[in-house]
Formats: sequence, C-alpha cells, structure tokens
Amino acid sequence: MSKRLYIQEVATRDGFQIEPEFVPTESKVALIDQLSRTGLAKIEVTSFTSPKAIPNLRDAEEVMRSITRVAGVDYTVLVPNVKGCERALACQVDEVNLVMSASDTHGLANLRMTPAQSLVQFREIIEVSRGSGVFINASLSTAFGCPFEGEVADSRVYDLIQRLLDIDVQGITLCDTTGMADPAHVSRICSEALQRWPQATFTAHFHNTRGMGLANALAALNAGIERFDASLGGLGGCPYAPGASGNICTEDLVHMLQRMGLNTGVDLDALLSTAARLPQLLGHDVPGAILKAGKADKRYPKPKWMTADNA
Amino acid sequence: MSKRLYIQEVATRDGFQIEPEFVPTESKVALIDQLSRTGLAKIEVTSFTSPKAIPNLRDAEEVMRSITRVAGVDYTVLVPNVKGCERALACQVDEVNLVMSASDTHGLANLRMTPAQSLVQFREIIEVSRGSGVFINASLSTAFGCPFEGEVADSRVYDLIQRLLDIDVQGITLCDTTGMADPAHVSRICSEALQRWPQATFTAHFHNTRGMGLANALAALNAGIERFDASLGGLGGCPYAPGASGNICTEDLVHMLQRMGLNTGVDLDALLSTAARLPQLLGHDVPGAILKAGKADKRYPKPKWMTADNA
Repeated sequence: MSKRLYIQEVATRDGFQIEPEFVPTESKVALIDQLSRTGLAKIEVTSFTSPKAIPNLRDAEEVMRSITRVAGVDYTVLVPNVKGCERALACQVDEVNLVMSASDTHGLANLRMTPAQSLVQFREIIEVSRGSGVFINASLSTAFGCPFEGEVADSRVYDLIQRLLDIDVQGITLCDTTGMADPAHVSRICSEALQRWPQATFTAHFHNTRGMGLANALAALNAGIERFDASLGGLGGCPYAPGASGNICTEDLVHMLQRMGLNTGVDLDALLSTAARLPQLLGHDVPGAILKAGKADKRYPKPKWMTADNA
Repeated sequence: MSKRLYIQEVATRDGFQIEPEFVPTESKVALIDQLSRTGLAKIEVTSFTSPKAIPNLRDAEEVMRSITRVAGVDYTVLVPNVKGCERALACQVDEVNLVMSASDTHGLANLRMTPAQSLVQFREIIEVSRGSGVFINASLSTAFGCPFEGEVADSRVYDLIQRLLDIDVQGITLCDTTGMADPAHVSRICSEALQRWPQATFTAHFHNTRGMGLANALAALNAGIERFDASLGGLGGCPYAPGASGNICTEDLVHMLQRMGLNTGVDLDALLSTAARLPQLLGHDVPGAILKAGKADKRYPKPKWMTADNA
C-alpha cells in the first residue's frame, strides 16, 4: 500500500456555517461522532467566531465538549481572533485554524482585514496559544484567485507563506475559495511550495464551483500534496465570497483516491452511510456524486430479456 | 501557444438520443450550425440507427442534409450496421463512428452483439465504405469497466484495439460509458495505447457519473491524448447502460483546458452562448458548471458597505 493520504473533513464548519437553517447541536455532535469513526485524519468541528457573525455555529463550545474524540483524529476549529483562540483552547482543541486572505479585497470583505493586518493579528493569537501544544494552521483564502480582484500573483502567495512560517505557523492550507484554480495553476503553486518549504505541512482546499474540484485535487496529488480538505456531501461555500459553492465532496474524493489504489485510511462505506443522512438532516439535496451513482464497483443485473431468453 | 487539442461535440447524438422529448429537426440544425462556428474539431451530428430503436434521432437524413457545413469541422455520425453506413454515405458524412462494447454483457444488452460479433459486422461496414474516403472511427464502450460485469481487463482492451486496427479502423475512441474510470486507470490505458499504436488516432470519451470526468480528462491529457469527446451542457448517457449519466461537459472541459493555457481552437464565449440555449430547448436544467458559475475570470463588485465606507 502506498503512503497514507490525509483526508480532512470540513462539512460541520465550512458547510454548516452557510446552511439556511441552524443544525441542532445534538445532530452536529452525532454527525461528528460518526465521522470520527470513518478513518478521517482531521475534522474541522466548528468555528469560534462571534455568534452574531455566524449564528449557525453559535454552539461551538457545546459541540466541542459533547463530541467523543477518537485517538488518531485531530479536532480543529476555525479561530478568527484572540478571543476565539482563548475559547478554543478552553475546549482543548488539537489545532486552531487561523484564516486570512491572499487578496486585499477578499480580506476586507470577509474579515475586514488586509493580509498585512491579518498577519499582525495572527502574531497575537499565536502568542496566546504558546505553550499549549496546539498545532497552528493558517488557511490562505483566495490563494488561486480572488472573486473581486481576479488573478493573485504567485509571488504574493509565496511571500505570505514565508511570512506565516516566520511567525511559527506550522501548517498552511492553500484555499481555492471560489473555484478559480485550474490544474496547471495548482500544479505550479503546490510544487513550488513543497519544494521551497519542505518542513511545512501543506493542505490543499478546493471548491467544485467550476467542475474542476477533483481535477485540481489530482493535480495537487501529482505535485506531492498529501493532505486534502473536503466536505461531506460536497457542502460548503463562503458567506462573504460571491460565486462560491460547495467544497470538493469528501466521499467523491475518497472514492477517486481509493479507485486509484491510494491509501486514504478512510472506510468509504462508513463515510457514505454518514453522508446519506445529510439530505434528511439539512432538508435539501447535496451535490455529491457517489451518493447518487453508487461506487464504481456497483454491479447492475442483466436486462430481463437477456435472462428470459436463456430461460 | 501549445499544440492544438481537438474537442469533439457529441450532444446532438449522445445527448439528444435519451432526451424524454423529441428535439425538433430545425432546432437540431440551428444548434449544430451554431456549434459549427465555435471552433470545435468534430461534431457527432446524429445516429443512423433504426427510428424504432432511437426515435429521437429518426430525422438523421434531414438533419445531415440541412446543416451548413463549415470547413475544418468534421461531421461524423454513429452507424450501427451496413444499412446505417449506406444511409450515412448517401449524406456525404466525413466520418462514420462504429460502436461496439469491450464487454460481452454490455455488448449484448446495448447492441445484441458480443465484441466478436461486432468485429464481424465492422468488416462488412468497412467493405461498404471502401473507396468513399470516409474516415472510419470505432468507439469502444465499457473500455474502463462494465456496469454488468465489472472490471474489463486491460489485455482485452488492447486485444480489441489491435483487432480494430487490423480491419482498417483509423480512429479509436476509448469510452468510459458509465463513469467507472479513475485517473490512474485512464493514465495506464491511454499511455499504453499511444505507445503501442502511434499511428492510430485515439479519442478519450468520459462521463461524469462519479464526479471524476474532468480529472479523467486531465489524466488522459497528461498521458498524451489530444482528442476529447464532450457534450454541450453535460448532456448524455446511454439508453442501455444502467447508471450512465451525462458526458463531460464541453464548455467545462474547454474552460479548464483554456485556463491551463492550452489551445483548444474553441471560442468559449460562443460555446457558452450556444449552451445557454439548452435549458429552454430541452425544458430542463443541464449539468454544466460554467453556465451556472461563470468563467473563472468573472469579477464580482465589492460589497456595497465597502464602497459606501469610502464615500
């Protein structure tokens, strides 16, 4: 078996934050507990943002404290500021995920901060977490393009990666927030990042807005990326990024990687059973393909007339 | 600019054949005429099958004779037997596309012929077309897996390719009829085929049933494939292949390839204008992503509060 790939689930944060209806706390906990037993490497449980900003995740503490943690799974949370980090640390998270944009306009629209301002704040957050042993990840939104500004220069992305590592960020997630990346762009950025900073832990985070989600994941994989964010059922989006739509779908990604003979550590059938609960839980259909089509090893019975002819 | 890739449109055959409603002849002709002016390399116009088998394409002759052909575009038709080939030749097609399955059960279910029986019939069809100058293409269905039998051995695919070339087939389309292929499988088969038979013209034909359509196209591209079948709007399926769903979407494929800096020869905006007519023409939504999301270079205005703050 090949080297293990790491599949990181973001549905209960990136997905649930934009659901039209609040998902009941006990349903969130039940879903996360199911996910914990599927072999996922990491689960982004919730976001310690202001309940006013993201009312759907106003139960962050209760969810974090109610889930049953499974050894080998990292539980991470999105943290927008020092206060959020303090709340997260009080819940003994394994990781905090800081978020900033690569582009000024998306940063201002989404976080009311330019990248430079985000970096100042990150330093304060990292000070607060020092000594806690918590892993520091930073998600770099619009790393492959900004819906307001368009192209984001590669050099800007590399500069921000260096600045993040300079302030002791350990993991960096390269986010294609609104599905603007293409496989050539992904290949270029990921190859360069892995080559320049072999000590850093990179994750690729794609949205399937323009149908290229799994093609981009393939390009990242071929470039050497081992960690992938994905969202159960293909839920997701960004409340402050127009045109954003669902993340790449976890079960579709795992299905593709497993068909390729790669080791994801994930029990795909368990993952599919969990994903199958989403339409009822959320009251709407979800974009994932495998839930609808079945796995590629699904067999159909021969047409009736063929067996009848032989009778 | 890099070497040109060839985008081959199949919507009016692979797509329209399974539409619940007959598409009026004049609408088919108008759509094909629009497509002819977008820079596509080839258009699979219709199918010369029995009107009883595929009533939606019962106007094959009228469509072929009414379209305005554009120099540089190859007009091909699906031909199931000698009679179909004679009808096609009478319409001065540029190419006939013969179709067979790689697997016995799908062959029997779809065509009532095993691969061996199809090859016998192909010989007769090729005899009929000899001297006409028409290009002979063969589409090998279920080359990446059969919905009834499951795995199709690579060796069986290679054996059938050799047998097709032995009887003077010039082009071979490797079809993932029900979306069972994964990028590793595609890479393996396509690389081997291109290496063994450099004189043959290979096309890759994928369906997006399991979300891997564009990832498979990327894998085929990386293996050296230059010709891709795709369907406007992502229409398509197979009337006798359970679980089949739409082909990869032409405008989504062209968008991805162009973003990668590759030369498709296609005017994407013209293609999108044409695709935009489909929902009204067919009375239902179509799966394509770019029609909904817009191209990756789409720009959104800044949030109102941001511009208001500056006022």
